Amino acid sequence: MSSFSPSYSCHKLQESMLSSASSFKNYRGILNWCVVMLVLSNARLFLENLLRNGILVDPIQVVSLFLKDPYSWPAACLVIVSNVFILVALYTERKLAMGSISEKVGLLIYIFNLTIILCFPMVVVLKLLSITPVGGAFALGVYTILFLKLYSYKDVNWWCRERTQAKARKTHGNVDWSYFDLCFSDIYYFVFAPTLCYELNFPRSESIRMGFLLRRLFEMTYFISNVLSIVFQWMVPIIRSSMKPLQEMDYSRMTERLLRLAVPNHLIWLIFFYWFFHSSMNFVAELLRFGDREFYRDWWNSETITYFWQNWNIPVHKWCLRHFYKPLLRRGAGKLLSQSAVFFASAFFHEYLVSVPLRMFRLWAFMGMMAQLPLAWFVARFLRGNYGNAAVWLSLIIGQPITVLMYVHDYYVTHCQDDPTIAEAL
Amino acid sequence: MSSFSPSYSCHKLQESMLSSASSFKNYRGILNWCVVMLVLSNARLFLENLLRNGILVDPIQVVSLFLKDPYSWPAACLVIVSNVFILVALYTERKLAMGSISEKVGLLIYIFNLTIILCFPMVVVLKLLSITPVGGAFALGVYTILFLKLYSYKDVNWWCRERTQAKARKTHGNVDWSYFDLCFSDIYYFVFAPTLCYELNFPRSESIRMGFLLRRLFEMTYFISNVLSIVFQWMVPIIRSSMKPLQEMDYSRMTERLLRLAVPNHLIWLIFFYWFFHSSMNFVAELLRFGDREFYRDWWNSETITYFWQNWNIPVHKWCLRHFYKPLLRRGAGKLLSQSAVFFASAFFHEYLVSVPLRMFRLWAFMGMMAQLPLAWFVARFLRGNYGNAAVWLSLIIGQPITVLMYVHDYYVTHCQDDPTIAEAL
Repeated sequence: MSSFSPSYSCHKLQESMLSSASSFKNYRGILNWCVVMLVLSNARLFLENLLRNGILVDPIQVVSLFLKDPYSWPAACLVIVSNVFILVALYTERKLAMGSISEKVGLLIYIFNLTIILCFPMVVVLKLLSITPVGGAFALGVYTILFLKLYSYKDVNWWCRERTQAKARKTHGNVDWSYFDLCFSDIYYFVFAPTLCYELNFPRSESIRMGFLLRRLFEMTYFISNVLSIVFQWMVPIIRSSMKPLQEMDYSRMTERLLRLAVPNHLIWLIFFYWFFHSSMNFVAELLRFGDREFYRDWWNSETITYFWQNWNIPVHKWCLRHFYKPLLRRGAGKLLSQSAVFFASAFFHEYLVSVPLRMFRLWAFMGMMAQLPLAWFVARFLRGNYGNAAVWLSLIIGQPITVLMYVHDYYVTHCQDDPTIAEAL
Repeated sequence: MSSFSPSYSCHKLQESMLSSASSFKNYRGILNWCVVMLVLSNARLFLENLLRNGILVDPIQVVSLFLKDPYSWPAACLVIVSNVFILVALYTERKLAMGSISEKVGLLIYIFNLTIILCFPMVVVLKLLSITPVGGAFALGVYTILFLKLYSYKDVNWWCRERTQAKARKTHGNVDWSYFDLCFSDIYYFVFAPTLCYELNFPRSESIRMGFLLRRLFEMTYFISNVLSIVFQWMVPIIRSSMKPLQEMDYSRMTERLLRLAVPNHLIWLIFFYWFFHSSMNFVAELLRFGDREFYRDWWNSETITYFWQNWNIPVHKWCLRHFYKPLLRRGAGKLLSQSAVFFASAFFHEYLVSVPLRMFRLWAFMGMMAQLPLAWFVARFLRGNYGNAAVWLSLIIGQPITVLMYVHDYYVTHCQDDPTIAEAL
C-alpha cells in the first residue's frame, strides 16, 4: 500500500487556520471587512435618514458645542495665549546656554512656567462660564500637550548641557554651544510635530507625498462627520432615555441602557483612535516631513491590560518612559513604585481633562484609570492568548460607557434639573 | 550636534502600522473583537427581547422547516437510501479488483450509479410534495457530496489498479491485490470523513482531544441558535416588508430593502462558514481522528475573486483540481477552457441545490456564479491590494442578497399569491 500513497496522497497532518494551535495570524482582510461594513451601513443609514427626516445633524448645534456666543472665542484665545509659555521656555534655555543664569534659577523659572501652564487654563475654564465643556476640554488638551512637550524640552536641553560641559571639562577646551539649536523655528517645529519627546535632530522624510496627504485629509473629514452622526442619531437618544432609570436607580433598566450605550460609545472611541492617531497625526507629520510615524503599535492584539496601555498611545508612552519612569528608576525608586506613579500621573491627567471642563469633581475618570491596576493583575494571572485579548476588548467596550454614564448622570443632576432649558436641549 | 543625537534620539524613520506601506499584517485581535461584539450584541438583544416579548423563535416553526408531517421523514428516508449507492460502488470495485468484470463494464456500472445518485433525489424532491425546501436542500446536499466522494473513489481505485498492473507486467509477477483496502470500514470512513478526495491511507491524528471536541460542540450549538435568531428576528421582517416593493417594481425602495437585507444575510453567511468549515468539520475530524484540518485557507485576505474561490472551500477546490481540472489538462484541454469548465460545473451544482428544493428553475444561482467570471477579470485588472480585498468583500456582501431576494420574490409570486395561508406564514 505504501508504494501508492505518496503519489496519490493529497492530505497532510495540519491544523485549521482559525484554531488557536495554528500559528497563522494574518487577518488584514478582517480589518478591511470592518471598514467596508462601516462605510456600507453608514451609506444606508444616510440614505434612509435623508429620505425620511432630512438632515438631523444641526450645524448650529455643532457650533454651539464649541461656542456660546459666536463673537467671543474664549477657548481659541486661551490657545493663542499659550505662545507666551513657549517663548518663556525658549528664552530661559537661551539664557541657560549662555550661562547668564544659573541652573537653579533656570529650574525655578521652569517650575513656575510649567505650574502656570496647568493652573492658568484650569482657573480660566472654571471661572469663565462662557466656555462650553467641549471648548474647555480642547483648550485643556492643548495646554496638557504643551506641558508635556516643554517638560521634555527642558530635560533634553539640560542633559545636553551637562554632557557638553563634562566633555569640555575633560578636554579642557571651550564649551561648543553651536550644538544647541535654540531658535524660534526649532521650538515651533517641535510644538507642532506629532511627538511629545524633544530631540535635537528629528528624523525627516524625504518629501511630502501629495496622494498620502490627500487620503489622510479625506479620512479626517469623513470620520468627523461619522462621529457626529453617531453622536446625534444614536447616542443622544439613548442617553436621554437613560436619565430616568438613572435618577430612580432602576438597576435592571440601567444595565440594559448601559449595554446599549456600549456599542456606539465603543465605535466612537475606535473611530476617534483612527482619526487622531492615524489620519491626523500622519497628516501633520507628512506636512512637516516628520519621519517617525509610530504613533501606535498593535494594541488590538494585546493579551494583557499592560500591553494595551504600552501600545495604544505611543507618544505619551514614550514620554512617560523617557521623562518619568526611567528618571525615577535612576533616582533609586523601585520598579513597582515607578509603574504605579506613572499610572497615578496618567489618572490625574484623565481626571483633569474631564472634571475641569465639566466643572464637576467626581473622580470617576481617576477611579476608572486606577481600576486598571487590579484588572491588569487579574487578566495577567488568569487569562491567556485569545481569552486575554477578549478580556482586554471587553474592558474597553464595557468600562468606558460606565464612566461616561456616571459623568452624564451627575452633569444632568447638577446642571439640568434646575434649568429646564438645558434639560430640554439634552 | 551629531555627537549628541544618537544617545538622546528616541525617534526613527518608520511608517504607521495601519499604512499600506507598512508590512505589518497581524490582526488576530480584530477577529477576537468581532467575536466579542457578536456575543455582546446577541446577549443584549436576547435580554431585551426576553424582557419585552418572551421567546419569538418558535420551535414548532423550526421543526416545520424540515418536516410537514412529523410522522413522515421523507428527507431522512432519502439519506438512508443513499447507502445503496455506496454499496454498489464498493461491490463494483471488489469485482474489478478480482478481475471478474472488465474495466468497461465497471465504468458502465459507475456511470449508471453516479447518474442515478444525481437524478433519483431530484425526482423524489420534485414529485414528493411533503418534502419542505429546507429538507429537500439537505437531502440534495448529502447526495451531491456522495456523488463527489464516489467519483473520487472510482478514480483513485482505477489509478491504483493501472499502476499495480503496469508494475506486475514489468516484473512479470502476480498482481498484489493486498494493496487495496476494499472493505466496509474503509469506504464508510471515507464517506464520513470531512474530505471529498479518496486516499488509500489518510493521515490520522494521534488521539481525540476531549477539550477540543467539547469546544467545537459548544460552538456548533451556539452558532445554530445564533443563525436561527438572526433569521427570525431580523431577516423575516425585512423580507416580508420588501414583498410589496418587489411586486410593484418600486426600484428606490427595492434598493433600500436590498441594502438592509445585505447585513443580516452576510452575517449568516459568515456564521455558516465558521459553523460548517471550522466547528462542524473539525468536530467530525476530531471524532474520526482525521489528520488534515485544512478545510479553508485565508480567503478573508483575498485580493482577487479567483483567490477567494480557490481558498474558501478547500474540500471542493481540492476535488475540482484533482478529479476535474488536471484530468482535463491531461487530455489536452487548454487552461482557460478547463477553468471555465470548472466554473460551469460549480454553477450547475449551485443551481441544482437551490432550484430543485424550491421547485423553480430560474437560473439566478447559475447566473450569479457565471457573473463571477467577468467580475474576476475586472477586479484583477483594475484593483490592487486592500482595494481588491474590499471589492471581494463588497461582491460577497451585495451579490448574495440580490440572488436571495430574486428567489424569494419568485417563490412568493408563484406559491403564495394563490395560497393565502403560506403568504400569511411568510
